[in-house]
Amino acid sequence: MASEPYRIKGALSPVVTPFRADLSPDTEKFIAHCRWLVDNGVGLAIFGTNSEANSLSLAERRALLEKLLEAGIDPRQLMPGTGCCSIPETVELTRHAVDAGAAGVLMLPPFYYKGVSDDGLFSYFSEVIERVDRPGLQLYLYHFPAVSQVPLSVALVERLLKRYPGIVAGIKDSSGDWNSMKAYIDNFAASGFDVFPGTETHLLNALRAGGAGCISATANVNPAQISGVARDWRKPEVEAANDNMVAIRAAFQRYPLLPAMKKAIAAGLGDPSWAVLRPPLVALDDASYEKLAAELAGLGFRFGR
Amino acid sequence: MASEPYRIKGALSPVVTPFRADLSPDTEKFIAHCRWLVDNGVGLAIFGTNSEANSLSLAERRALLEKLLEAGIDPRQLMPGTGCCSIPETVELTRHAVDAGAAGVLMLPPFYYKGVSDDGLFSYFSEVIERVDRPGLQLYLYHFPAVSQVPLSVALVERLLKRYPGIVAGIKDSSGDWNSMKAYIDNFAASGFDVFPGTETHLLNALRAGGAGCISATANVNPAQISGVARDWRKPEVEAANDNMVAIRAAFQRYPLLPAMKKAIAAGLGDPSWAVLRPPLVALDDASYEKLAAELAGLGFRFGR
Repeated sequence: MASEPYRIKGALSPVVTPFRADLSPDTEKFIAHCRWLVDNGVGLAIFGTNSEANSLSLAERRALLEKLLEAGIDPRQLMPGTGCCSIPETVELTRHAVDAGAAGVLMLPPFYYKGVSDDGLFSYFSEVIERVDRPGLQLYLYHFPAVSQVPLSVALVERLLKRYPGIVAGIKDSSGDWNSMKAYIDNFAASGFDVFPGTETHLLNALRAGGAGCISATANVNPAQISGVARDWRKPEVEAANDNMVAIRAAFQRYPLLPAMKKAIAAGLGDPSWAVLRPPLVALDDASYEKLAAELAGLGFRFGR
Repeated sequence: MASEPYRIKGALSPVVTPFRADLSPDTEKFIAHCRWLVDNGVGLAIFGTNSEANSLSLAERRALLEKLLEAGIDPRQLMPGTGCCSIPETVELTRHAVDAGAAGVLMLPPFYYKGVSDDGLFSYFSEVIERVDRPGLQLYLYHFPAVSQVPLSVALVERLLKRYPGIVAGIKDSSGDWNSMKAYIDNFAASGFDVFPGTETHLLNALRAGGAGCISATANVNPAQISGVARDWRKPEVEAANDNMVAIRAAFQRYPLLPAMKKAIAAGLGDPSWAVLRPPLVALDDASYEKLAAELAGLGFRFGR
């Protein structure tokens, strides 16, 4: 009998991508950041929204993934984002990730056209899965209606799970809406479908309801606490850590989240280049950062590694 | 004294991309369709929204453009869409188009992140222009808020025009809102900025107000009439043709526009493969097409070439 496939669980982070002043990816800093996240119990959902993945070329994404492997990062820590607007490019990145031994891929729906039908989305994901044609594929859907503007309905997930059991492995739900996350859990978790809220704010809720963890941007800056809550969620003493963790998240979220995190990393490491974003995103202004830093200090938090 | 640069004007079409049953682009049919459009007075805004450009890979877009040149299509008829989400990919496609001798490029803003600032968009377009680094670049902005979800404000256009005069050559406005089109015309047309409504419904309005023509999906199916109106707009007898043209557009627009056009081409040529779309888009159902065909017949229209 075949063993159950490995399933990544707990806290993961859409890894922020450091850039040099000329906007090229800084591979060494990226590797160092990934190592530190893994050392702090956080899996690597590289090439997510907060990684500026869609601001990278395909070639840049492939090269960064390969550099992580060369640096000795365990591919079972990896859940790369591979969802592009086109089938051939999504297939290319997905194959590349599966062949690298990644634990899974996190796949945006095609996000250019709006108001597309469930039939069209089902057909899209089916084409991708068939064309990737790899037994090791574990596909995590990415539901982020505010940004992708292409929501993934419970009915669509049900069709995909029925057609591709074992391949359709779970979902990241970045809707911010607990009712949405709970609907995926209630409908599909019992059949082995892993639901990850897109924020640690709902991490305890999700784990208690049968979810698998969370995939959260702020795990880039607060990894040990978030992975600790994911690990200790059954212990009564987790509540205090959870309260602090949620407050830290809320503080970051009062600002543009990614620019705020990059600025916090830059300040914590004394390395201004960490604050660089690719356009159209812009860096957080200093005044806003000072306010954020003061609030974070009040919560006992300062980025450091 | 240097001569004025060539400026493409009149009616252009986002050329629909024909696919084979296996979803690969059908190059021969694409070339034939492009030739017919040019013969009917319509310029080639290949790789637009209705070309399913974002459902094509970069490599597919490059290859299709090269095949058009090999087939003898005059590059001065071309305004390829080159706007991707990432700077490196937008630069790659834009350079490729400029080096091919295209009359211009039609550039979507980066469309993954929503709610981005004018500063961020200015920085994005600036980076692209600087990195393309070609004197022949003529850049047409693409304002399509319903689909890209990233509108281009008059203030942003003003900043870009001031910084890159001669390079920022115009805009396609697919908002459907005449007030938006008129604002671009009133503010910038006198300085040589060419405004193209995204529909022939506003073609006469635009030309009379100082616009440059239109870039319209339905020019794929009704090119001679649309280019005729663009040519004859000063003649009183244009009104009857304009009324019929607008009615034909309205008929198509009661259905999902691209699937309806592809189905009409398939029916007109007796070639069902023309109806194929790449997921997530889906073909128009037969019952809807029959209704559309009946309405078009009442307007004296049937696709043929």
